[in-house]
Amino acid sequence: MRTVYGVNPVLEALRASVAIDRILISEGRTGKAPAEVLRLAREKKIEVSRMPEEELRRISGTDRHQGVAAVLHEEFKYYDIEDLIAIWKEKGNQAFFLILDSIQDPQNLGSLVRTANAAGVHGIIIPKDRASEVTAAVVKAAAGATEHTRIAREVNISRAIERLKEEGVWVAAVEAGCKDTVWSADLDRDLAIVIGSEGMGIRRLVRERCDFCVSIPMAGQVNSLNAAQAGAVALFEALRQRSGSR
Amino acid sequence: MRTVYGVNPVLEALRASVAIDRILISEGRTGKAPAEVLRLAREKKIEVSRMPEEELRRISGTDRHQGVAAVLHEEFKYYDIEDLIAIWKEKGNQAFFLILDSIQDPQNLGSLVRTANAAGVHGIIIPKDRASEVTAAVVKAAAGATEHTRIAREVNISRAIERLKEEGVWVAAVEAGCKDTVWSADLDRDLAIVIGSEGMGIRRLVRERCDFCVSIPMAGQVNSLNAAQAGAVALFEALRQRSGSR
Repeated sequence: MRTVYGVNPVLEALRASVAIDRILISEGRTGKAPAEVLRLAREKKIEVSRMPEEELRRISGTDRHQGVAAVLHEEFKYYDIEDLIAIWKEKGNQAFFLILDSIQDPQNLGSLVRTANAAGVHGIIIPKDRASEVTAAVVKAAAGATEHTRIAREVNISRAIERLKEEGVWVAAVEAGCKDTVWSADLDRDLAIVIGSEGMGIRRLVRERCDFCVSIPMAGQVNSLNAAQAGAVALFEALRQRSGSR
Repeated sequence: MRTVYGVNPVLEALRASVAIDRILISEGRTGKAPAEVLRLAREKKIEVSRMPEEELRRISGTDRHQGVAAVLHEEFKYYDIEDLIAIWKEKGNQAFFLILDSIQDPQNLGSLVRTANAAGVHGIIIPKDRASEVTAAVVKAAAGATEHTRIAREVNISRAIERLKEEGVWVAAVEAGCKDTVWSADLDRDLAIVIGSEGMGIRRLVRERCDFCVSIPMAGQVNSLNAAQAGAVALFEALRQRSGSR
């Protein structure tokens, strides 16, 4: 059973017409936000259950439910690399993908999904093993963006990179210590950006498949950014270059 | 009592010669990371206490201590706006400040401190009330950057903005719906960037004091970024413009 919790994620799921089984609302919660959840649920003819706060906590598996949760019909629907390529071809614009190599923190994964969606990627590729999948905590951190973003879960990230390269996509690893920077490199082309995990960075075998490597220049004492921040900087620099804001 | 927890924050505190009272290590934890903490603690002649995991959890107030914590001599040392201005003048380069209007999530505050440090700001200004202060959770999320970053805690953010403007600093509010974008606006000048809180944005009275307002262009379905990601994009775009990478 997959649940989405928190006011914004639940509203987003309702609006995006995700298959919702049931809406759960904590007893005694009143105010504008639960009222809007109720109104939308009624409009969409979705069953609403009132329950004690403790019960809601147990079902959602968290304290951070803000009094509302949605129980979804099905597991998160993943795409595969071929779907992502097909979507890009259908849109007919420059390829723009994000590859996440083993992000383990759900908070970071959720932030990256939201940021990548805002930057307009065609899809995100994550590994099947040793990485966070799209859990309720990820949906919450993404503030609803998971419902609008195509995510492919691939067993072999290196093979997915090879597949993109076959289609003419340039694959850029974001890492410390590269000769090129996100500013000096040409990101205005068919592109996939690779971000590594918090502690380990990009795995060697994955990095070796990339076409080039770019760093984010640093001007302070700290010499690295969190994965979610590094992703934001790289994705929006690519978007800037593509928008012709040079 | 202020504690810093987690392997990297503790190592960073040890290396930065922060006044540390005591190092706490969970009994039974072995490996490279605790060993390096031990080595540095001995080198700096700091007392080390071994304790049960549960005790460490109680003292650090979290499960995320990774087996180590440092008890610091004193509370986090805040600066004030005049200190920040003096530091900028002393450095003699272009002013670069980050103003955070009521960030409440410690994770976001920590990320923003780390990102702002990496972007090379002279200092950060946060409000005294209704905002997260620099707690152990913030230190952890900042991965050590709090020890290298000057943070001023001001009762009145509007007055702090006025003070910066008196010194010739341009104050830019990052918000949705502005005519200018972070890309089109000139950020290559004495500058303070204002980021609002997760839910509320920048408070009206604060925004009215800003010189101009810039948006981050969005290309997907999601129409806003999390405060930490918005800050990363704006800070590094300013750094790019200052670096002459146009």
